[in-house]
Amino acid sequence: MKGDKNVDIQNLKDMANKLRIDSIVATNASKSGHPTSCASMAEIMSVLFFHTMKYKISAPRDPSSDRFILSKGHAAPILYAAWAEAGLFPLEDLKNLRKIDSDLEGHPTPRLNFIDVGTGSLGQGLAVAAGMAYVGKYFDQTSYRVYCLVGDGEAAEGSVWEALHFASHYKLDNLVVIFDVNRLGQSEPTSLQHQMDVYDARLKAFGLHSLVVDGHDVGELIKAFDEAATVSGKPTAIVAKTFKGKGFPGIEDKDNWHGKALGAEGDKIIKHLQAQIKNPGWKPRVSAPQCEAPRVHVADITLSAPPAYERGARVATRLAYGTALRKIADTNLRVIAMDGDTKNSTFSDKLRSAYPERYVECFIAEQTLVGVATGAACRARAVVFASTFAAFFTRTFDQIRMGAISQSNINLVGSHCGVSIGEDGPSQMGLEDLAMFRAVPTATIFYPSDAVSTERAVELAANTRGICYIRTSRPETDILYAAGTSFKVGEAKVVRESAADKVLLVGAGVTLHEALAAADLLQKEGIEARVLDPFTIKPLDEDAIRKHTKAVGGRIVVVEDHYQAGGLGEAVLSALSAERSVLRHLCVRGVPRSGAPAQLLHAHGLAAQHVAAAARDLLQH
Amino acid sequence: MKGDKNVDIQNLKDMANKLRIDSIVATNASKSGHPTSCASMAEIMSVLFFHTMKYKISAPRDPSSDRFILSKGHAAPILYAAWAEAGLFPLEDLKNLRKIDSDLEGHPTPRLNFIDVGTGSLGQGLAVAAGMAYVGKYFDQTSYRVYCLVGDGEAAEGSVWEALHFASHYKLDNLVVIFDVNRLGQSEPTSLQHQMDVYDARLKAFGLHSLVVDGHDVGELIKAFDEAATVSGKPTAIVAKTFKGKGFPGIEDKDNWHGKALGAEGDKIIKHLQAQIKNPGWKPRVSAPQCEAPRVHVADITLSAPPAYERGARVATRLAYGTALRKIADTNLRVIAMDGDTKNSTFSDKLRSAYPERYVECFIAEQTLVGVATGAACRARAVVFASTFAAFFTRTFDQIRMGAISQSNINLVGSHCGVSIGEDGPSQMGLEDLAMFRAVPTATIFYPSDAVSTERAVELAANTRGICYIRTSRPETDILYAAGTSFKVGEAKVVRESAADKVLLVGAGVTLHEALAAADLLQKEGIEARVLDPFTIKPLDEDAIRKHTKAVGGRIVVVEDHYQAGGLGEAVLSALSAERSVLRHLCVRGVPRSGAPAQLLHAHGLAAQHVAAAARDLLQH
Repeated sequence: MKGDKNVDIQNLKDMANKLRIDSIVATNASKSGHPTSCASMAEIMSVLFFHTMKYKISAPRDPSSDRFILSKGHAAPILYAAWAEAGLFPLEDLKNLRKIDSDLEGHPTPRLNFIDVGTGSLGQGLAVAAGMAYVGKYFDQTSYRVYCLVGDGEAAEGSVWEALHFASHYKLDNLVVIFDVNRLGQSEPTSLQHQMDVYDARLKAFGLHSLVVDGHDVGELIKAFDEAATVSGKPTAIVAKTFKGKGFPGIEDKDNWHGKALGAEGDKIIKHLQAQIKNPGWKPRVSAPQCEAPRVHVADITLSAPPAYERGARVATRLAYGTALRKIADTNLRVIAMDGDTKNSTFSDKLRSAYPERYVECFIAEQTLVGVATGAACRARAVVFASTFAAFFTRTFDQIRMGAISQSNINLVGSHCGVSIGEDGPSQMGLEDLAMFRAVPTATIFYPSDAVSTERAVELAANTRGICYIRTSRPETDILYAAGTSFKVGEAKVVRESAADKVLLVGAGVTLHEALAAADLLQKEGIEARVLDPFTIKPLDEDAIRKHTKAVGGRIVVVEDHYQAGGLGEAVLSALSAERSVLRHLCVRGVPRSGAPAQLLHAHGLAAQHVAAAARDLLQH
Repeated sequence: MKGDKNVDIQNLKDMANKLRIDSIVATNASKSGHPTSCASMAEIMSVLFFHTMKYKISAPRDPSSDRFILSKGHAAPILYAAWAEAGLFPLEDLKNLRKIDSDLEGHPTPRLNFIDVGTGSLGQGLAVAAGMAYVGKYFDQTSYRVYCLVGDGEAAEGSVWEALHFASHYKLDNLVVIFDVNRLGQSEPTSLQHQMDVYDARLKAFGLHSLVVDGHDVGELIKAFDEAATVSGKPTAIVAKTFKGKGFPGIEDKDNWHGKALGAEGDKIIKHLQAQIKNPGWKPRVSAPQCEAPRVHVADITLSAPPAYERGARVATRLAYGTALRKIADTNLRVIAMDGDTKNSTFSDKLRSAYPERYVECFIAEQTLVGVATGAACRARAVVFASTFAAFFTRTFDQIRMGAISQSNINLVGSHCGVSIGEDGPSQMGLEDLAMFRAVPTATIFYPSDAVSTERAVELAANTRGICYIRTSRPETDILYAAGTSFKVGEAKVVRESAADKVLLVGAGVTLHEALAAADLLQKEGIEARVLDPFTIKPLDEDAIRKHTKAVGGRIVVVEDHYQAGGLGEAVLSALSAERSVLRHLCVRGVPRSGAPAQLLHAHGLAAQHVAAAARDLLQH
């Protein structure tokens, strides 16, 4: 801030009203959207974008710039307006809001060059912001700061409190959370309405430096943001008492105005707001970042040494994951790992042992785990591997779904898939993870079946854009591949083949080994079977599936340690949808129970004998 | 408690050590499990089960009894031990822990007659407990109380804080949450370790009556539980400072003992514990409930009036949901609804308008929404319908997954599915919900395509066991069925048919209407098409799919407003896996964007013209 302080304050007040007007214009043009949700945060946006934040209009995602995450993504119009007022694009473009040929979507996505992550599923922004702040403080070690605006409605989401706990535990003093407490939710007042003291007490108890302010008082906001910049050792929460529809006469603080364009009311209200603007010609100046973030290299990741296993050894793929994680961390300083207090089961602790400063413990808070991973990977600052039990990624399906919208490049590793984990029982078995990740449009799914291919899966995932998921298994399994074998995304391996093959067997993880054993059984009966390891479930090597299915006469058995829907079996069926082939699908039907792994594979019909029986059955039809 | 107080305290101390011994014996027999996690809560269990709680051994799930939810489900052995010591089954049975032919699984499930809900995915128990307490206080209005034991590790889960907020907002003074703060997680100390003051401050800020106690002091625990019973207007939190492995010399409060049987150490430790037991022959008595819970009728639910729509009218299925919800609430007092602040979009507000006392607002906290629903439906106390946008159920996939293990009977209703919601953009579009629910073994999925079938879907869901999911759509669609049409789970309807049909078109929701329009287009070219409405996606009417596919010569087009994986298309492929048929699958590929609904249906190739083109293409091959 330069010049006379009172003039600046007036200019920022004027800017708040300009942003309100812009938000009305945009939502009236689209005939939908959330102008009242914008109005409550107009002063906050004005102060943040034109007083507090340091960033470059010329390069909105410059790694040195401060970050802003609009967790309440439905207030997108005022975020777009702020960037337009800052000069990034013409104000006139705001009228294209929500049109199919505009990137100014209903909720922000990184199709826009000034958006880091998609928001709109509430309660997710803060964990992402915390991930960015963690990288800023501990890896980049530079001065950019992270601002996250959270709506009071979404403050009911547990994910917000998880993330607050994470931020205070790691003393993220470069993070400022602004709560826009505008009292009204979508369908009724929020549970806490304007109980500012309750927010304040909760935030202090969660370890934040908390400041309650009048969110429509530019001067108070300036002071609060300035104070936040001086706080050391803890994140700051600015709890802003605001009013939904602030400045919209007849609408302000009234129910039933959520998510509605103002329509005919708009013009009158725009005139009312214009009348309050004292210096309409003021051109804001944006403050540039003062330090450069370090240049980092996050591509071309390689294992420090090729896989080294004896043929005949038995190694769990989850263990091979830990080994490979450590190996890629050897060769790139920006490979980091995080986990949700399962690191001694997923074996992410192998990275931690070697490079403790590059491991982030997220404790038992999977939504935070994935949110922090997303934030850490943002603006290409780190190559992130986040692991927990496969089953517990279901806790984060919404975050993963939003990760696709966010064009996120994170690697998620789920151990303990399927009934083959045994005695711990169904709550700990990942049996729907393939269905979940296959339904994520940007996902690549690795399902390695031995230690060699697991190591290569980790290396490939580190270099593959989008969300990579690696499914690892608990039991020890045979080494199948020579150390020098090369693997590609979308390339299956035929692990057993003869010219006389009459049926194709497809398995992955433990079931590939059952399929191989089944082929042995069948051979004793004079039936030759081809066995295929898909390696990646998405993209599936559809050409290989079709080619080998055709080669054996259109008969295929798929066996997987996963529920029936959405997994490997249906992926194969999709590949064969245009073929006139027949398929037997062996999978987990019904909720499993505790038991020894081999007992459970038998109980669910996934063992070699069942695969062989299915193959025989196909050959008889 | 009868008799001499000091003797009773000694007996409860003795019981705690008996429970420790039982836990060691059980986990040593299974060679796996979590004895140290049991040891920290031994005094809590002793006091709860043999002093505080009122329940019937003769009928463990009697609705009048106090409820106990072990949120940290991995401590199952001590829960089993408590019931065995109470006399429900022989102590000897504990040695069957985790065996495939025993219901004493690694984590508790309702296969056991004393377990209400499965636990083991951490952080979920409290929302369920809150749902039970809500029903106890507001619907049953009787004296049973709800006790939920939460581990300190899982207290990092946001879902715990969501549920605490819910419990205090609704003044659930019949709920007691016990935090077993044993300092150690699975792989390292918890983030807060023994900072009891931090727990206390957070819980007080969240509106609970919080008491910090020595969790190994039987006298202190008795006092705390007695005090909790006197608290009015808020739930009580008992924050117990404990030690993991308490009473196990050399193991107590030590790292690296999570989830490990004591093995050879066990015998020595058992002797050490036995030596501390003063009155080994004491037989505990269990206190019976003092009041009877009301008898309720939660079966045979019917609409108060049949669907009443004009042929030719256009009605959104989400609106028909609200209408039907109100109608079943007319006829059964135990039909209740809940929502996550989207009730004016899902139209669950129609129940609230008619019967405000039977509507539970869960605010923007979907994990709580599903958890509370699960708890409310437990022990057959209520017929629960919980709604939000289809997309936001992804936030609760872990709860839904656990709901299958819990044998839960809840009805979930997801509105705003698919790209046909339009301008709000991808964050608000449910595009993976069918994949998610199809991967739930106990789920029934309704995907009605008009208002008449929607009303019947609601009626059927109310009477169908397991998790029912109803997928509703935002756009208005034509009425397809006469008011008197009857519907069944797993029964498809053929909505257009002739003897000359050459191709089968399958759609649901908005895409069924596109399929019908496509049939019109094709007819103009002399191609007759059969059109099938599956009504339920799970179970899918596989016989009908096969029969009609065969009737048209093995050609089928599936069109769905959902991503490619795991939805209707792959369900149909699974039905046809043993047939030599060919299928074209039209679905959403890639992340959508904002735009008008019709534009988006076109952009993603889901409109009538695309269906017709796919059919033509099939006929040319």
